[in-house]
Amino acid sequence: MSDDVVIVGAGHSKFGKRKDEGIRELAFEAVQDLLKDFNKGLDDIDASVVGIAGEEFSGQGAPAAVVVDEIGMAGKPTLRVESACATGTAGIKAAYGWIKAGFYDAVMVVGVEKMTSVSSARATELMARAGDVRWESPFGVSFPGYYALMASAHMAQYGTTREMLSSVGVKNHFYGAKNPLAHIQKEVSLEEAMSSIPIAHPLNLYDCSLISDGAAAIVLTKESLAKEFTDTPIKIRGIGSGSDNMMMSERESLTSLRGAKMAAQKAYKMAGITPDQVDVAEVHDCFTIAEIIATEDLGFFEPGEGGKAALDQQTYIGGKIPVNVDGGLKSKGHPLGATGVSQAVELRKQLLGEAKNRQVDGAEIGLSHNVGQTGQFVNVMIYSR
Amino acid sequence: MSDDVVIVGAGHSKFGKRKDEGIRELAFEAVQDLLKDFNKGLDDIDASVVGIAGEEFSGQGAPAAVVVDEIGMAGKPTLRVESACATGTAGIKAAYGWIKAGFYDAVMVVGVEKMTSVSSARATELMARAGDVRWESPFGVSFPGYYALMASAHMAQYGTTREMLSSVGVKNHFYGAKNPLAHIQKEVSLEEAMSSIPIAHPLNLYDCSLISDGAAAIVLTKESLAKEFTDTPIKIRGIGSGSDNMMMSERESLTSLRGAKMAAQKAYKMAGITPDQVDVAEVHDCFTIAEIIATEDLGFFEPGEGGKAALDQQTYIGGKIPVNVDGGLKSKGHPLGATGVSQAVELRKQLLGEAKNRQVDGAEIGLSHNVGQTGQFVNVMIYSR
Repeated sequence: MSDDVVIVGAGHSKFGKRKDEGIRELAFEAVQDLLKDFNKGLDDIDASVVGIAGEEFSGQGAPAAVVVDEIGMAGKPTLRVESACATGTAGIKAAYGWIKAGFYDAVMVVGVEKMTSVSSARATELMARAGDVRWESPFGVSFPGYYALMASAHMAQYGTTREMLSSVGVKNHFYGAKNPLAHIQKEVSLEEAMSSIPIAHPLNLYDCSLISDGAAAIVLTKESLAKEFTDTPIKIRGIGSGSDNMMMSERESLTSLRGAKMAAQKAYKMAGITPDQVDVAEVHDCFTIAEIIATEDLGFFEPGEGGKAALDQQTYIGGKIPVNVDGGLKSKGHPLGATGVSQAVELRKQLLGEAKNRQVDGAEIGLSHNVGQTGQFVNVMIYSR
Repeated sequence: MSDDVVIVGAGHSKFGKRKDEGIRELAFEAVQDLLKDFNKGLDDIDASVVGIAGEEFSGQGAPAAVVVDEIGMAGKPTLRVESACATGTAGIKAAYGWIKAGFYDAVMVVGVEKMTSVSSARATELMARAGDVRWESPFGVSFPGYYALMASAHMAQYGTTREMLSSVGVKNHFYGAKNPLAHIQKEVSLEEAMSSIPIAHPLNLYDCSLISDGAAAIVLTKESLAKEFTDTPIKIRGIGSGSDNMMMSERESLTSLRGAKMAAQKAYKMAGITPDQVDVAEVHDCFTIAEIIATEDLGFFEPGEGGKAALDQQTYIGGKIPVNVDGGLKSKGHPLGATGVSQAVELRKQLLGEAKNRQVDGAEIGLSHNVGQTGQFVNVMIYSR
């Protein structure tokens, strides 16, 4: 483990409802952004890992090859990984393994999703199929429903309130308004958030993340080779993964994700740090309740205290732990396969002090938390300068 | 690289048109077969990698989690990999990387596909979408068409004949008839093969592999831990991958797969062997022409000599290099995500001397060649005792 794996390049497309861009163009845009600040070229990257969660959004089967062709890496080994909404970090983990196995010196990870090519209703249906299509989704449950169950349980068990939920959305829109790559760059008041239309009780519109198009890309290499690519490598200090039973009805708890706690424990151990050492976090706020639960599962707050902490602005810059200060899935957007890679791109900016008007001063350690389905795929990554 | 990665368990479902079994049941069947001859239990396996090529066959989004739940490994980290028809070996490579990275000591790789839940026409259409859905498949090309182009080019350039193509199908049905897990266990005469109905000129019915349901599973661990799991570990000696441009029109050659040559070169180098040291090979005979080209790309025969070698029975047991003596994709079947893992299961049998009436005597080194799309994803693996 002497030769760490490092991030030596990063790029990010605009997230949003992109009219003319498919998975190819979105990936191309992220890779072009990456190349702007990269001492080497695509010829110096040996292979790629492509993260795409759903092939029915784009209609392209085995989509890795067309993406790789478009970005200029045709002819180099590639594969697609998929872990539902945790696809992006699954890609980083696979590339990390390839480098550690000695297959390649430098690997690009591209996460991309085109979601707005179908209607919102169809997108919701396609995502619902990531629930159990035999025992759950045929009976009408979709993702807002799953997370509504968790929100109800958290409210009942800990006294979490609607105001606490909404305060997460308000924060993420506050920071999303400062992020030029965010899907929705608009602040939302607590009143607006609380009175927005119901989606799945107790979740309202402003409790739900966005259906977005977008891509993000990073290049990984060994620390010993990093200098050839950049003067400012970022270390991958920890990677931990967890999972849980497929069906919600089989879970021990609805107020915590077992997989997230497993993943965090592994990642902290690998990095040799404790939660209080994390300076900035990107967590999987597919719904506001998910961010509250994440901040508890990651050990930033005690179980049941995440909602109060959100209301007390402990997750803003200047609070105990700044969370999703790029806007998160709620405001930056959530193109499924891109999200985990986008978290890495954003944390790299923070750790390099390049996050401008949403910079966490002196951030040295960043953590990302990426959840697929309702916790069947969870990856926690820890990055540092 | 001192601690090699080894296979310490393997299982295989019946391949075929399975009536009541979906991806869950097929995977379960393969894992139950694995456990019959395994000194440890599922509790001793840390994580899994699931290979499934297409989610539209089963309708299950993010299908890894339901598979893992069914086989009894819920709650342990997992992900899905996808490389079209090379999905199975992509899974083995990802698991190898995870072990080398130190994430896990023991990882299960499950490859599975349920294809007969849709009509053959629909299956062909879904597979055609792995071609370029912008520039190729909308104009009517499907996989028989792609490989028909290769066959025509090979015939024109090297004088390969219809009889040579058919002789590949005859051989694979000859051996498939000896494999109780094969989809079609029936010998086919050269006359039958040559006079079978045309599919895409010059390919006939008996030039095309099968649309099958099935699963295969293996467990990987470090050599230093192998004894806890089995007395007969199989080493993964080499892994090489290659790729090519997305579109056939951009290829340098239609009579060879650039990606297969790249992958073979890498795998031979990693294993420190030459093609003549391979005792038994599993190659990706999605079409008969694909097997002929494979035996050339892998260095078993000179370019253009693969067809003659097939006709001369040089790929039978007793010939220069026994190829697909389990029936291959043509007769054993081709459940997309399972195929690459099935190749590993079959080679393990050969290397352990357990292949019964299709055993290659004294086989010590086995090679598998697994191709996705038309060569955009190629993995070559080398195994030995």
